[in-house]
Amino acid sequence: MARTKNFDENEVLELAMYLFWKKGYSATSMKELEQVMGLNPTSIYNAFGSKRELFKKVLDLYLHTLLSRFIESVEKAETARQAVNNVLRESLNLHFNVSNPGGCLVVLSLLEKEQHDESTKAMLDSALQHLQNAISVRLNQAQKDGEIRLGVDNNVMANHVTALIVGMITMARAGFSRADLEALIKKSIDIFTEQNWVS
Amino acid sequence: MARTKNFDENEVLELAMYLFWKKGYSATSMKELEQVMGLNPTSIYNAFGSKRELFKKVLDLYLHTLLSRFIESVEKAETARQAVNNVLRESLNLHFNVSNPGGCLVVLSLLEKEQHDESTKAMLDSALQHLQNAISVRLNQAQKDGEIRLGVDNNVMANHVTALIVGMITMARAGFSRADLEALIKKSIDIFTEQNWVS
Repeated sequence: MARTKNFDENEVLELAMYLFWKKGYSATSMKELEQVMGLNPTSIYNAFGSKRELFKKVLDLYLHTLLSRFIESVEKAETARQAVNNVLRESLNLHFNVSNPGGCLVVLSLLEKEQHDESTKAMLDSALQHLQNAISVRLNQAQKDGEIRLGVDNNVMANHVTALIVGMITMARAGFSRADLEALIKKSIDIFTEQNWVS
Repeated sequence: MARTKNFDENEVLELAMYLFWKKGYSATSMKELEQVMGLNPTSIYNAFGSKRELFKKVLDLYLHTLLSRFIESVEKAETARQAVNNVLRESLNLHFNVSNPGGCLVVLSLLEKEQHDESTKAMLDSALQHLQNAISVRLNQAQKDGEIRLGVDNNVMANHVTALIVGMITMARAGFSRADLEALIKKSIDIFTEQNWVS
Protein backbone atom coordinates (compact mmCIF):
# COMPACT_ATOMS: atom_id res chain seq x y z
CA MET A 1 0.00 0.00 0.00
CA ALA A 2 1.41 3.39 -0.99
CA ARG A 3 2.06 5.74 1.90
CA THR A 4 -0.15 8.78 1.91
CA LYS A 5 1.67 12.09 2.19
CA ASN A 6 -0.02 14.63 4.40
CA PHE A 7 1.11 17.56 2.27
CA ASP A 8 0.67 18.79 -1.29
CA GLU A 9 3.99 18.42 -3.13
CA ASN A 10 3.45 21.38 -5.42
CA GLU A 11 2.40 23.60 -2.56
CA VAL A 12 5.54 22.97 -0.49
CA LEU A 13 7.71 23.09 -3.62
CA GLU A 14 6.35 26.55 -4.26
CA LEU A 15 7.35 27.62 -0.75
CA ALA A 16 10.86 26.29 -1.39
CA MET A 17 10.89 28.12 -4.74
CA TYR A 18 10.28 31.50 -3.14
CA LEU A 19 13.08 30.87 -0.64
CA PHE A 20 15.67 29.89 -3.28
CA TRP A 21 14.52 32.81 -5.45
CA LYS A 22 14.91 35.24 -2.56
CA LYS A 23 18.20 33.99 -1.14
CA GLY A 24 20.07 32.17 -3.91
CA TYR A 25 21.08 28.52 -3.94
CA SER A 26 23.99 28.38 -1.52
CA ALA A 27 22.57 30.93 0.89
CA THR A 28 19.47 28.75 1.34
CA SER A 29 20.02 26.28 4.17
CA MET A 30 18.21 22.99 4.69
CA LYS A 31 17.18 24.36 8.10
CA GLU A 32 15.35 27.28 6.45
CA LEU A 33 13.85 24.99 3.82
CA GLU A 34 12.46 22.81 6.61
CA GLN A 35 10.97 25.90 8.25
CA VAL A 36 9.26 27.38 5.19
CA MET A 37 8.16 23.98 3.88
CA GLY A 38 6.93 22.97 7.32
CA LEU A 39 8.51 19.52 6.92
CA ASN A 40 11.18 17.59 8.74
CA PRO A 41 14.41 16.57 6.97
CA THR A 42 13.23 13.00 6.39
CA SER A 43 9.97 14.08 4.74
CA ILE A 44 11.85 16.49 2.48
CA TYR A 45 14.37 13.83 1.57
CA ASN A 46 11.75 11.19 0.89
CA ALA A 47 9.62 13.47 -1.24
CA PHE A 48 12.27 15.48 -3.10
CA GLY A 49 15.73 13.99 -2.48
CA SER A 50 18.82 16.06 -1.71
CA LYS A 51 19.01 19.88 -1.74
CA ARG A 52 20.32 19.66 -5.30
CA GLU A 53 17.42 17.45 -6.40
CA LEU A 54 14.96 19.68 -4.58
CA PHE A 55 16.34 22.73 -6.40
CA LYS A 56 15.99 20.98 -9.74
CA LYS A 57 12.30 20.33 -8.97
CA VAL A 58 11.92 23.96 -7.87
CA LEU A 59 13.49 25.18 -11.10
CA ASP A 60 11.21 22.89 -13.06
CA LEU A 61 8.19 24.34 -11.24
CA TYR A 62 9.44 27.89 -11.92
CA LEU A 63 9.86 27.14 -15.63
CA HIS A 64 6.42 25.55 -15.89
CA THR A 65 4.56 28.26 -14.01
CA LEU A 66 6.42 31.56 -14.33
CA LEU A 67 8.62 31.27 -17.40
CA SER A 68 5.79 29.57 -19.27
CA ARG A 69 3.74 32.75 -18.81
CA PHE A 70 6.40 34.60 -20.79
CA ILE A 71 6.22 32.02 -23.57
CA GLU A 72 2.42 32.03 -23.58
CA SER A 73 2.30 35.81 -23.74
CA VAL A 74 4.30 35.54 -26.97
CA GLU A 75 2.47 32.60 -28.50
CA LYS A 76 -1.05 33.80 -27.75
CA ALA A 77 -0.55 37.34 -29.04
CA GLU A 78 -2.49 38.20 -32.19
CA THR A 79 0.34 40.24 -33.65
CA ALA A 80 4.12 40.29 -33.26
CA ARG A 81 3.87 43.83 -31.96
CA GLN A 82 1.57 42.62 -29.20
CA ALA A 83 3.79 39.63 -28.52
CA VAL A 84 6.84 41.84 -27.94
CA ASN A 85 4.86 44.30 -25.86
CA ASN A 86 3.39 41.47 -23.74
CA VAL A 87 6.65 39.70 -23.06
CA LEU A 88 8.45 42.91 -22.10
CA ARG A 89 5.63 43.70 -19.69
CA GLU A 90 5.80 40.19 -18.19
CA SER A 91 9.32 40.97 -16.98
CA LEU A 92 8.06 43.97 -15.01
CA ASN A 93 5.07 41.97 -13.71
CA LEU A 94 7.47 39.29 -12.48
CA HIS A 95 9.67 41.70 -10.55
CA PHE A 96 7.03 44.12 -9.27
CA ASN A 97 4.48 41.48 -8.20
CA VAL A 98 4.60 41.97 -4.43
CA SER A 99 4.14 38.22 -3.83
CA ASN A 100 7.47 37.57 -5.57
CA PRO A 101 10.89 38.17 -3.99
CA GLY A 102 12.07 40.38 -6.88
CA GLY A 103 14.36 39.65 -9.81
CA CYS A 104 14.09 36.26 -11.52
CA LEU A 105 15.19 32.82 -10.33
CA VAL A 106 16.57 31.94 -13.78
CA VAL A 107 18.65 35.11 -14.09
CA LEU A 108 19.90 34.75 -10.51
CA SER A 109 20.80 31.10 -11.04
CA LEU A 110 22.52 31.80 -14.38
CA LEU A 111 24.77 34.26 -12.59
CA GLU A 112 25.23 31.73 -9.74
CA LYS A 113 25.96 29.02 -12.29
CA GLU A 114 29.09 27.76 -10.54
CA GLN A 115 26.93 26.64 -7.63
CA HIS A 116 25.04 24.22 -9.84
CA ASP A 117 25.73 20.85 -11.40
CA GLU A 118 25.88 20.15 -15.11
CA SER A 119 22.25 19.13 -15.57
CA THR A 120 20.96 22.23 -13.74
CA LYS A 121 23.31 24.46 -15.75
CA ALA A 122 21.88 22.96 -18.93
CA MET A 123 18.31 23.61 -17.71
CA LEU A 124 19.22 27.25 -17.00
CA ASP A 125 20.89 27.87 -20.37
CA SER A 126 18.03 26.33 -22.27
CA ALA A 127 15.44 28.33 -20.30
CA LEU A 128 16.72 31.60 -21.75
CA GLN A 129 17.27 30.07 -25.18
CA HIS A 130 13.75 28.64 -25.12
CA LEU A 131 12.35 32.12 -24.46
CA GLN A 132 14.45 33.64 -27.25
CA ASN A 133 13.33 30.88 -29.58
CA ALA A 134 9.63 31.40 -28.82
CA ILE A 135 10.03 35.09 -29.68
CA SER A 136 11.96 34.27 -32.85
CA VAL A 137 9.34 31.74 -34.00
CA ARG A 138 6.55 34.29 -33.42
CA LEU A 139 8.45 36.92 -35.43
CA ASN A 140 9.01 34.44 -38.27
CA GLN A 141 5.28 33.80 -38.36
CA ALA A 142 4.63 37.54 -38.45
CA GLN A 143 7.02 37.88 -41.37
CA LYS A 144 5.06 35.22 -43.27
CA ASP A 145 1.84 37.05 -42.37
CA GLY A 146 3.23 40.27 -43.81
CA GLU A 147 3.38 42.08 -40.46
CA ILE A 148 7.19 42.23 -40.42
CA ARG A 149 9.17 43.54 -43.36
CA LEU A 150 11.08 41.03 -45.47
CA GLY A 151 14.79 41.37 -44.77
CA VAL A 152 14.39 41.91 -41.02
CA ASP A 153 16.65 39.45 -39.16
CA ASN A 154 14.21 38.00 -36.64
CA ASN A 155 16.90 36.18 -34.71
CA VAL A 156 18.70 39.45 -33.98
CA MET A 157 15.43 41.08 -33.05
CA ALA A 158 14.52 38.19 -30.72
CA ASN A 159 17.95 38.59 -29.09
CA HIS A 160 17.23 42.30 -28.66
CA VAL A 161 13.92 41.60 -26.94
CA THR A 162 15.50 38.91 -24.73
CA ALA A 163 18.28 41.31 -23.69
CA LEU A 164 15.69 43.94 -22.76
CA ILE A 165 13.67 41.44 -20.69
CA VAL A 166 16.68 40.27 -18.71
CA GLY A 167 18.21 43.73 -18.48
CA MET A 168 15.02 45.33 -17.18
CA ILE A 169 14.59 42.68 -14.48
CA THR A 170 18.08 43.45 -13.18
CA MET A 171 17.52 47.20 -13.42
CA ALA A 172 14.28 46.83 -11.45
CA ARG A 173 16.29 44.94 -8.83
CA ALA A 174 18.69 47.91 -8.72
CA GLY A 175 15.88 50.33 -7.94
CA PHE A 176 14.99 51.70 -11.39
CA SER A 177 11.34 52.70 -11.18
CA ARG A 178 8.48 50.87 -12.84
CA ALA A 179 7.51 54.12 -14.60
CA ASP A 180 11.00 54.47 -16.11
CA LEU A 181 10.99 50.86 -17.30
CA GLU A 182 7.48 51.22 -18.74
CA ALA A 183 8.68 54.25 -20.67
CA LEU A 184 11.52 52.11 -22.00
CA ILE A 185 9.04 49.44 -23.16
CA LYS A 186 6.89 52.04 -24.89
CA LYS A 187 9.87 53.54 -26.68
CA SER A 188 11.19 50.09 -27.66
CA ILE A 189 7.86 49.22 -29.26
CA ASP A 190 7.96 52.52 -31.19
CA ILE A 191 11.49 51.77 -32.35
CA PHE A 192 10.70 48.20 -33.39
CA THR A 193 7.60 49.44 -35.18
CA GLU A 194 9.49 51.98 -37.26
CA GLN A 195 12.30 49.54 -37.96
CA ASN A 196 10.54 46.30 -38.54
CA TRP A 197 6.85 46.46 -38.96
CA VAL A 198 5.08 47.17 -42.17
CA SER A 199 2.36 49.32 -40.71
CA MET B 1 56.26 51.45 14.46
CA ALA B 2 53.73 50.29 11.91
CA ARG B 3 53.77 46.59 11.13
CA THR B 4 54.90 45.79 7.63
CA LYS B 5 52.58 43.51 5.69
CA ASN B 6 54.31 40.94 3.55
CA PHE B 7 51.62 41.06 0.86
CA ASP B 8 50.16 43.60 -1.55
CA GLU B 9 46.61 44.41 -0.40
CA ASN B 10 45.28 45.10 -3.89
CA GLU B 11 46.82 41.93 -5.27
CA VAL B 12 45.16 39.65 -2.71
CA LEU B 13 41.92 41.63 -2.92
CA GLU B 14 41.88 40.93 -6.64
CA LEU B 15 42.22 37.20 -5.94
CA ALA B 16 39.29 37.41 -3.53
CA MET B 17 37.33 39.37 -6.16
CA TYR B 18 37.64 36.60 -8.74
CA LEU B 19 36.47 34.03 -6.19
CA PHE B 20 33.36 36.02 -5.13
CA TRP B 21 32.64 36.76 -8.79
CA LYS B 22 32.88 33.10 -9.72
CA LYS B 23 31.00 31.60 -6.79
CA GLY B 24 28.69 34.29 -5.36
CA TYR B 25 28.80 35.75 -1.87
CA SER B 26 27.36 32.98 0.31
CA ALA B 27 28.93 30.14 -1.66
CA THR B 28 32.39 31.62 -1.02
CA SER B 29 33.78 30.24 2.23
CA MET B 30 36.46 31.84 4.39
CA LYS B 31 38.45 28.60 3.91
CA GLU B 32 38.52 29.12 0.13
CA LEU B 33 39.30 32.82 0.55
CA GLU B 34 42.29 31.86 2.71
CA GLN B 35 43.44 29.46 0.01
CA VAL B 36 43.20 31.80 -2.98
CA MET B 37 44.51 34.80 -1.04
CA GLY B 38 47.33 32.70 0.44
CA LEU B 39 46.71 34.20 3.88
CA ASN B 40 45.71 32.85 7.26
CA PRO B 41 42.44 33.94 8.91
CA THR B 42 44.19 36.42 11.22
CA SER B 43 45.99 38.18 8.37
CA ILE B 44 42.74 38.45 6.41
CA TYR B 45 40.89 39.78 9.43
CA ASN B 46 43.61 42.31 10.32
CA ALA B 47 43.91 43.59 6.77
CA PHE B 48 40.29 43.50 5.61
CA GLY B 49 37.98 42.74 8.56
CA SER B 50 35.07 40.29 8.38
CA LYS B 51 33.87 38.48 5.23
CA ARG B 52 31.27 41.23 4.80
CA GLU B 53 33.88 43.97 5.06
CA LEU B 54 36.19 42.06 2.73
CA PHE B 55 33.39 41.80 0.16
CA LYS B 56 32.75 45.52 0.38
CA LYS B 57 36.42 46.17 -0.40
CA VAL B 58 36.25 43.66 -3.25
CA LEU B 59 33.17 45.39 -4.67
CA ASP B 60 34.93 48.73 -4.36
CA LEU B 61 37.92 47.34 -6.27
CA TYR B 62 35.58 45.91 -8.94
CA LEU B 63 33.83 49.26 -9.36
CA HIS B 64 37.12 51.17 -9.58
CA THR B 65 38.78 48.81 -12.03
CA LEU B 66 36.15 47.04 -14.11
CA LEU B 67 33.02 49.18 -13.94
CA SER B 68 35.13 52.31 -14.35
CA ARG B 69 36.21 50.99 -17.74
CA PHE B 70 32.56 51.06 -18.82
CA ILE B 71 32.24 54.66 -17.63
CA GLU B 72 35.51 55.70 -19.27
CA SER B 73 34.52 54.08 -22.55
CA VAL B 74 31.48 56.39 -22.53
CA GLU B 75 33.20 59.56 -21.35
CA LYS B 76 36.23 59.32 -23.61
CA ALA B 77 34.30 58.62 -26.81
CA GLU B 78 34.37 61.40 -29.38
CA THR B 79 30.75 60.90 -30.38
CA ALA B 80 27.64 59.52 -28.67
CA ARG B 81 27.46 56.85 -31.34
CA GLN B 82 30.95 55.70 -30.40
CA ALA B 83 30.12 55.93 -26.70
CA VAL B 84 27.15 53.58 -27.07
CA ASN B 85 29.09 51.22 -29.30
CA ASN B 86 32.03 51.16 -26.85
CA VAL B 87 29.99 50.53 -23.74
CA LEU B 88 27.98 47.73 -25.35
CA ARG B 89 31.23 46.10 -26.44
CA GLU B 90 32.68 46.43 -22.92
CA SER B 91 29.96 44.10 -21.67
CA LEU B 92 31.09 41.37 -24.09
CA ASN B 93 34.75 42.04 -23.24
CA LEU B 94 33.94 41.59 -19.57
CA HIS B 95 32.23 38.24 -20.02
CA PHE B 96 34.38 36.75 -22.76
CA ASN B 97 37.76 37.77 -21.29
CA VAL B 98 39.13 34.34 -20.41
CA SER B 99 40.80 35.72 -17.26
CA ASN B 100 37.37 36.58 -15.86
CA PRO B 101 34.94 34.04 -14.37
CA GLY B 102 32.09 35.13 -16.68
CA GLY B 103 29.07 37.31 -16.02
CA CYS B 104 29.46 40.40 -13.87
CA LEU B 105 29.96 40.71 -10.11
CA VAL B 106 27.53 43.65 -9.91
CA VAL B 107 24.74 41.85 -11.79
CA LEU B 108 25.31 38.67 -9.77
CA SER B 109 25.29 40.59 -6.48
CA LEU B 110 22.20 42.59 -7.44
CA LEU B 111 20.35 39.32 -7.94
CA GLU B 112 21.88 37.99 -4.68
CA LYS B 113 20.87 41.21 -2.94
CA GLU B 114 19.27 39.46 0.05
CA GLN B 115 22.68 38.12 1.00
CA HIS B 116 24.03 41.64 1.50
CA ASP B 117 23.68 44.33 4.14
CA GLU B 118 22.13 47.74 3.56
CA SER B 119 25.34 49.59 2.70
CA THR B 120 26.40 46.96 0.15
CA LYS B 121 22.90 46.97 -1.37
CA ALA B 122 23.19 50.73 -1.77
CA MET B 123 26.60 50.37 -3.46
CA LEU B 124 25.14 47.83 -5.89
CA ASP B 125 22.09 49.93 -6.80
CA SER B 126 24.17 53.03 -7.36
CA ALA B 127 26.69 51.13 -9.50
CA LEU B 128 24.07 50.48 -12.18
CA GLN B 129 22.55 53.92 -11.79
CA HIS B 130 26.01 55.49 -12.08
CA LEU B 131 26.54 53.69 -15.39
CA GLN B 132 23.12 54.76 -16.68
CA ASN B 133 23.84 58.31 -15.60
CA ALA B 134 27.20 58.44 -17.38
CA ILE B 135 25.49 57.33 -20.59
CA SER B 136 22.69 59.86 -20.10
CA VAL B 137 25.14 62.73 -19.50
CA ARG B 138 27.11 61.80 -22.63
CA LEU B 139 23.90 61.74 -24.68
CA ASN B 140 22.86 65.13 -23.31
CA GLN B 141 26.23 66.53 -24.38
CA ALA B 142 25.74 65.03 -27.85
CA GLN B 143 22.33 66.68 -28.07
CA LYS B 144 23.93 70.05 -27.30
CA ASP B 145 26.59 69.29 -29.92
CA GLY B 146 23.89 68.64 -32.52
CA GLU B 147 24.71 64.93 -32.87
CA ILE B 148 21.42 63.80 -31.35
CA ARG B 149 18.09 65.13 -32.55
CA LEU B 150 16.21 67.55 -30.35
CA GLY B 151 13.22 65.80 -28.81
CA VAL B 152 15.03 62.50 -28.20
CA ASP B 153 14.54 61.47 -24.55
CA ASN B 154 18.11 60.69 -23.54
CA ASN B 155 17.11 59.20 -20.22
CA VAL B 156 14.99 56.55 -21.96
CA MET B 157 17.78 55.90 -24.44
CA ALA B 158 20.33 55.52 -21.62
CA ASN B 159 17.96 53.04 -19.96
CA HIS B 160 17.76 51.14 -23.23
CA VAL B 161 21.54 50.93 -23.50
CA THR B 162 21.86 49.90 -19.84
CA ALA B 163 19.27 47.14 -20.32
CA LEU B 164 21.18 45.83 -23.34
CA ILE B 165 24.48 45.81 -21.42
CA VAL B 166 23.06 43.89 -18.49
CA GLY B 167 20.91 41.64 -20.66
CA MET B 168 23.77 40.66 -22.95
CA ILE B 169 26.03 39.76 -20.02
CA THR B 170 23.37 37.36 -18.74
CA MET B 171 22.73 35.95 -22.22
CA ALA B 172 26.46 35.34 -22.66
CA ARG B 173 26.37 33.48 -19.33
CA ALA B 174 23.54 31.35 -20.77
CA GLY B 175 25.64 30.33 -23.76
CA PHE B 176 24.54 32.83 -26.42
CA SER B 177 27.52 33.18 -28.76
CA ARG B 178 29.77 36.21 -28.99
CA ALA B 179 28.96 36.43 -32.71
CA ASP B 180 25.21 36.59 -32.02
CA LEU B 181 25.68 39.28 -29.39
CA GLU B 182 28.00 41.28 -31.65
CA ALA B 183 25.32 41.15 -34.34
CA LEU B 184 22.88 42.52 -31.75
CA ILE B 185 25.24 45.40 -30.95
CA LYS B 186 25.66 46.22 -34.63
CA LYS B 187 21.91 46.22 -35.20
CA SER B 188 21.30 48.30 -32.05
CA ILE B 189 23.71 50.95 -33.27
CA ASP B 190 21.91 51.01 -36.65
CA ILE B 191 18.57 51.40 -34.89
CA PHE B 192 19.80 54.14 -32.56
CA THR B 193 21.33 55.92 -35.53
CA GLU B 194 18.14 55.98 -37.54
CA GLN B 195 16.09 56.93 -34.51
CA ASN B 196 18.23 59.41 -32.73
CA TRP B 197 21.19 60.71 -34.58
CA VAL B 198 21.12 63.56 -37.03
CA SER B 199 23.55 62.04 -39.49
